[in-house]
Parts: sequence; structure tokens; C-alpha cells
Amino acid sequence: MKDLESYLDRSLPKFQEDLFALLRIPSVSTHPDSKADVRRAAEWVLNDLVSMGLSAELWETTGHPVIFAETPPVPGRPIALVYGHYDVQPPDPLGEWTSPPFDPTVRNGNVYARGATDDKGQMLTHVKSVQTWLNCRKSLPLQVKFLIEGEEEIGSDGLFGLIPQRKDRLACDVVVISDTSQFAPGQPAITYGLRGLVYFELTVSGPLQDLHSGTFGGAVMNPLIALSRLLHGLVDDKGTIQVPGFYDDVVPLRAQERAEFATLPFDEAAWMGRLGIPAVHGETGYTTLERRWARPTFDVHGLTGGYQGPGKKTVLPARGSAKFSFRLVPNQSPQKIEDALRDKLARDCPTGVRWELQAYHGNRGITVPFDSPYVAAASQAIELGFGKRPVLVREGGSIPIVNALHDHLHADTLLLGWGLDDDNTHSPNEKFCLADFAHGIRASLHLWDQLGRIER
Amino acid sequence: MKDLESYLDRSLPKFQEDLFALLRIPSVSTHPDSKADVRRAAEWVLNDLVSMGLSAELWETTGHPVIFAETPPVPGRPIALVYGHYDVQPPDPLGEWTSPPFDPTVRNGNVYARGATDDKGQMLTHVKSVQTWLNCRKSLPLQVKFLIEGEEEIGSDGLFGLIPQRKDRLACDVVVISDTSQFAPGQPAITYGLRGLVYFELTVSGPLQDLHSGTFGGAVMNPLIALSRLLHGLVDDKGTIQVPGFYDDVVPLRAQERAEFATLPFDEAAWMGRLGIPAVHGETGYTTLERRWARPTFDVHGLTGGYQGPGKKTVLPARGSAKFSFRLVPNQSPQKIEDALRDKLARDCPTGVRWELQAYHGNRGITVPFDSPYVAAASQAIELGFGKRPVLVREGGSIPIVNALHDHLHADTLLLGWGLDDDNTHSPNEKFCLADFAHGIRASLHLWDQLGRIER
Repeated sequence: MKDLESYLDRSLPKFQEDLFALLRIPSVSTHPDSKADVRRAAEWVLNDLVSMGLSAELWETTGHPVIFAETPPVPGRPIALVYGHYDVQPPDPLGEWTSPPFDPTVRNGNVYARGATDDKGQMLTHVKSVQTWLNCRKSLPLQVKFLIEGEEEIGSDGLFGLIPQRKDRLACDVVVISDTSQFAPGQPAITYGLRGLVYFELTVSGPLQDLHSGTFGGAVMNPLIALSRLLHGLVDDKGTIQVPGFYDDVVPLRAQERAEFATLPFDEAAWMGRLGIPAVHGETGYTTLERRWARPTFDVHGLTGGYQGPGKKTVLPARGSAKFSFRLVPNQSPQKIEDALRDKLARDCPTGVRWELQAYHGNRGITVPFDSPYVAAASQAIELGFGKRPVLVREGGSIPIVNALHDHLHADTLLLGWGLDDDNTHSPNEKFCLADFAHGIRASLHLWDQLGRIER
Repeated sequence: MKDLESYLDRSLPKFQEDLFALLRIPSVSTHPDSKADVRRAAEWVLNDLVSMGLSAELWETTGHPVIFAETPPVPGRPIALVYGHYDVQPPDPLGEWTSPPFDPTVRNGNVYARGATDDKGQMLTHVKSVQTWLNCRKSLPLQVKFLIEGEEEIGSDGLFGLIPQRKDRLACDVVVISDTSQFAPGQPAITYGLRGLVYFELTVSGPLQDLHSGTFGGAVMNPLIALSRLLHGLVDDKGTIQVPGFYDDVVPLRAQERAEFATLPFDEAAWMGRLGIPAVHGETGYTTLERRWARPTFDVHGLTGGYQGPGKKTVLPARGSAKFSFRLVPNQSPQKIEDALRDKLARDCPTGVRWELQAYHGNRGITVPFDSPYVAAASQAIELGFGKRPVLVREGGSIPIVNALHDHLHADTLLLGWGLDDDNTHSPNEKFCLADFAHGIRASLHLWDQLGRIER
């Protein structure tokens, strides 16, 4: 593997330049105004794959396009499908970025930009490792396919529609995804569980328009008070969710998992200090890692309503709204929870106001087996790439497409995260450690070697 | 009075033009950026008073300026002080205005603009009636003083500072204020009670910056959930306030008042229909008029926090805030309530987040005697101006300065409202009925006549 590693070392500056070019494209999939930019990112990925000699295609979807590419088949060896995404979260609050979110800037060995880790940087490690193999060896020891989408941050609707139709093209033995994190700096990890998600926007409306709170207050239900009441009713003071039946299908943590989590070198005080929080908070009877990885949660993401300018305005607002979600663990059904939520809101909503609930696409939580030859190969490759054996972890985030790929392609999944949990994904000042960008490419070089040794 | 009334009829188009000119000035006192416009409105009022031959002065304050003017003393007759304000509420939400808020537009006999009723239109009725007297008679039957400020909508801090220093210049027997409403179209009213106000902004902060709700959710207290919890804790589902001791100093409604309110021709179904609300809401055991006029209340005016753009963003926000207030009835102390509120927030705030409370200037509720010769004179003047005898009412809004004028000048107060309660004060599409602008000037013409008959 010396030839490949040495080519990687020589090519790193160029590979970083490629990453920066992709990071400059503000491909915010949720913004209707960013459609052209999102497409530009798709085309950038397409061109990069084509320019290294791959057969690559842009597939139109109901939303943003999907990029597909593949190396030639290798009979008798497994097929690996690399899934990633070129879309990013909105960058706001903009004022809190040290450097502009779409102007990648290197500080202390990290590149700062929206999407640096999630997922442009991580996704590109596999593109660049395949490029390295092709340059040095003209071929790979197994067939590698790429499936790079542009709607991961908004529920992957377009790709969900394509998977059943393109099942044959996507056929594979193992799905490789780098959209998670290492356990800690210098401690790589393989993730075997992800949480699911159901995301809602609740709007509460009262009077036809804003009213004077002096003239009307006390006799007209205030929509913002009603909204606070409804949100408050969804969760108790320990974070236990109050939607009836919410926990019915939750698979309890196994004693072995809890024991393994407990052995991980997690420094809670340092973690709190980094976040700047005075105390951790969550369900009684669970550790911080358990609460983050393996228990369902409720979070409010945004509140808006009434007067939000400087100073005071004595208005009784016509309406207010909240964006919120539940993270789910395996076996919980997004639809069942939406139904139970609607029942609860209907019961809890005060008289004098009306409520409306918009549900976004939901996805289930998942755990994947970790006793497969693929996990063993990945573990070996990561050790060679990072110089340290990975630990097995779960992660609190969601990758909506993992379930669909698993269900339709009947393939195993490898969640190989090169990020760090202080990378500020979804937050201002997202970053990716450039050393880990290199480690990730190196691990990916070895991954194709290791997986290519498995007989199919 | 025929000469005066006929001069008024001839001058109405000119008086309306003057009103429209003042309405074109966006004198939003709470916006730091509007300082120059607020001053422009002050100067407009000053020039209008000077151009009719009055001695008028611009008094600087710690905030926006105050305009003072006076007609010559009339020995043996009372002095009336007209209080009004040239500042206005912010116009937002801008998108809900049919015509731009600072482009006065006449539709169906109403002028639509921010400040049309509150208080530029109502305040000008007294300016224009004095102008009419001076034009027709060269003098008035009593001394009239004007005190027109620019901070009524933000707590009147500047004027509060001036009153003790300028007590001698402001000395009067009766304060005349038109900043309230008629009881209904065609049913004028004299207001004998106003509610007070304490206004707060509560900010709840958690992590140093926004976090990924998947990676951190469940172990980090969400500031927006904490904010909902704190707001929810301040009021029960009937609108009864849960701040300990809040009701201790509340003066109960007298049986006679309740009986009189009950005789007023209030059509609750029509009122609900106009507001577009499915039900009234409020404290058990009180009518809608009692809830609006004579009971303390809690209202949330604005909520802001986290992601408020289109689509979804799975963020655990660093902070959120709410603007809210309590309306007070006579005898409740704003300071005592602020203290009790701080105690309650300190007790209720969940661990894992911090709270900060900003208090704006508060003011007490007030009721004024209604058996004085001034009320009798005003009642007579209104009947002559509007063609209908006024009823006695209370009002739910606050005029912060009324208490201070009362305390320092030891004068009676006449709250003579020419507006209507669907004038959308503090809301989009604020309006003022132009016929009532004329009725108001006519009533004011007679007010000087009637008050001038009282021997001092």
C-alpha cells in the first residue's frame, strides 16, 4: 500500500483545494432560494467523479439531484456503495461565525466552513481514495459505487423516491457512510446505531390580526401563551416525553451496551466546559452517553411570534409558531408518534385559539450488526488510517436514508465517522480537522484493500 | 358657538391635511434608528403651535423632546393642560398593512396610518380647536396649556424626569387627554380608569452556541423548552397569574361598577366575530368587559429563538427570549411584582440554563373621580360635539404619565376618547374615523367653553 499512501501524501494539498472549492458552494437544501447553488454543488461532484475517469450520472429527483458513479465490477468480490451528501444546513445565526460560512478558512489545522464535516469533507475522503487507487493502480480490488445526494438535511425525499426504481443500479453488499464522528480526538469509532427523527412545525393562531394588549388583554387567548402551554405539555422537567404511548415501542438498552458505554473514556466535566453549560440535563437513570445515543428526546429548534424588534411593543399577537422534533430509537414509528401528538395537541389546546401542525418526513432509528466481516475489515482499515483501533459507539443524530438503503438493498451498513463532536455541525463555525481529512482518505484506501480481500 | 362651528366646518379639509402631514413622519420612539424622525415629528408639532400664534417651546429630555405651549392666563378661570404624544408604535408586521403605515390613505371615511388614532389624530383635535378659537375669537375663555411628548409608547422616561422640575409651568386644574376610545361607534365615553403596566424581556441561555440536536439532544437542557416552561408557569389555563402575591393589592371591582358595566350595550358575539376568535378567554367569574378593563392580566408580546427560516433545521439553540407584560389595576405596585417575578423565575428555572430579566419602566393603574364639575363640563361638551351623551367606562390600556401628572400637579384628569376599539392601535392597519376627528374638534371647542364657565 506504500504507493497509494505516498501518492496521497503528495496529493493532499490538491485534495484540500478540491474540498475548499466544494465548500465555497452554499448548497443549503432547505432554502428555496438556494436551488441553483445546490445544483452547482451536485455538478461539482459529478465533474470531480468524471474527471478521475469514472462513469458518473446526474439523476433528477422530485427535489435536488442525486449523483451516481461506479467503478468496474470485480467478480467474486463485494460491492461497496458509498453514500454521502453534498447539501448543508443553513448557516445562521450568521453573526456568530468567525469567518464567513462559505469562505473556507484554515485556523489551527482545521478548515472552517458550513459542510466542512457534514458531509462534504467526510464524503470526499472516499472520492479522493478512489481517485488515488485509480491513479496508482488503474483499478480497485472491488467495485465501488457512489450515491451522493442533496437532500439529506431535509429528509431525502427525492432519493427515497429513486431507491426502489434504481435498486439494480444501487445493488451492493455493504453501504459505507462517513457522516458521523470519532469518539474523541485521536479515538476513531465505528457507529452501530443512529436515532430516527420526526420533525414538526406547530402554528397557533388567535385573532385575525395583532391586537393592543391593553384593550384586549385578559379576554382574548394569547397565541404565544397557548404555544408555550402546548410545548410545555410535551415534556416534563426531566426531559421525559409526555405524548401518550411515546415509549411503548422503545427497545431498552441492553445491559452489555450500557456496560460498554461506561468503559468509554468520556470526560463529562470537560464536555460541559466546552459547551459552556452549567449542568447536564436529561432523563433520570441514564448517563449522558445513553441520553445522547440511545434514548428518545424532544427538542425545540425555533420559536417565532409577535414583536421581536428592539424595545417594547404591547401587542397581543395574531399567531406564533414553533419548530420541534423528537429523536427516536429503533422500533419507534414516526407515524404512530405523529398521530399520538395530534391527539394530544387537540386535547391540550386552549379554547380561543386554533392550532395547525405541519409534519416533515420522518425516519426510524436503526442499529446495525457489528459482528460481520465488513466491520472487521473497516476496523482494520481505520487502525491503519488513524493509527488507533476504533471503538464501537452509537450516535444521536439521524441519517434518514440508512433505513431505506438497508430495507431495499439488503446490504450491511458501515458508519465510519471521521468528524469530532465539537465540529459544530448544524451550528456556527462548523469545522473539519485537516489531519483527519487525510486520516480518513488513508483509512478509505485501506478499506478498499480490506473489503477486496473478502470473498463474496 | 355658531362662529366657531362654522369655521371648523370650513377648515376641516385643511385640518385633515395637517393630520396627514404629521402621520407621514415615522416617529417610532422605540427604534434607535428613528431618532431623527421622532424629532421631526416634535418639530412639526412645535411649528404648528407657533404658527397659530401660541408661545411654544421644545424641551429637551433624556430621550425624545417634549413640546410645551400655552395660551394667555384667564384670571378666575381654571387652567386646562392638554397632554398627548406624537410618537407611535412600530408598524410591523409590515406585510399585513393594506396601505403603507406612513402613507395616510383614506378608505370608507377612515384615515389609515400608524398613529392615526394613537395619538396623533386625537391629540390634534385639541390643537385644532384652540386654533379655531384663536382665529374666531382671538382668545379662549380659560388658559389652555399643551404638553405633547415623544415617549408615551416606551414609558415616558424623559417626561417623567421633567415634570418635577417644570411643575410651575405645568400647573393646572385639569388634565385633558384624548388617548382612549369611545365605547362603540356613535357612543362616546369618558374613561375613569386605566390599567398600569410592567413590561419585561426574559432571555434564557444554555450552551455557548447552537448545537446539533442529534448529537447533544437529551443531555443538554434546551433553552427554548426552558423558556416555554417559565412562561407557562406564570399563568394558569384561565389567565390567572401564578406569581406569588400578585393579587394581594388588587382592589376588587365595586358591585356598582359591575352593575354599570353590565348595562353597557356590549355585543360580545359581534366583538368576537370582528376579532375572528372562536371563543373569549379569561379569568373565571368575570365578564369580558371586566376582564379587559378592570382585572390584571399577563400577555406574551414576542417570542424569538433558534431557527426561524423556512424548512427545518435540527438545532439545539444557544438561547431564546420572550417579551411579556402584566397589566395592573389600581393599587398594584410594579416594583413589588418585578421582585416577586424574579423570585419565581429563580425558583422555576430548570438546571442547565441561565436566565436574565430586563425590566422596562412600569406604571401603576389609576381610577379618577367622576363626580367633579370638570366631568360634568366634559360630558356636556361631548354631547354637543358628538350628538350623544357619553357613558362612563374604564379602559384596559395604560397611559404611563397620568399617574405622574396627577401626583405632581394635583389636578383632576379627563380621559376623553375619540377613537374606536377596532382602530387597530398597536396593530397593522391602524385607522381613525375622519367624522370622529371632526366630532372630536367640535367637542373640544365646547370643552373650552364649558370649562371656561367654571369659577376657580
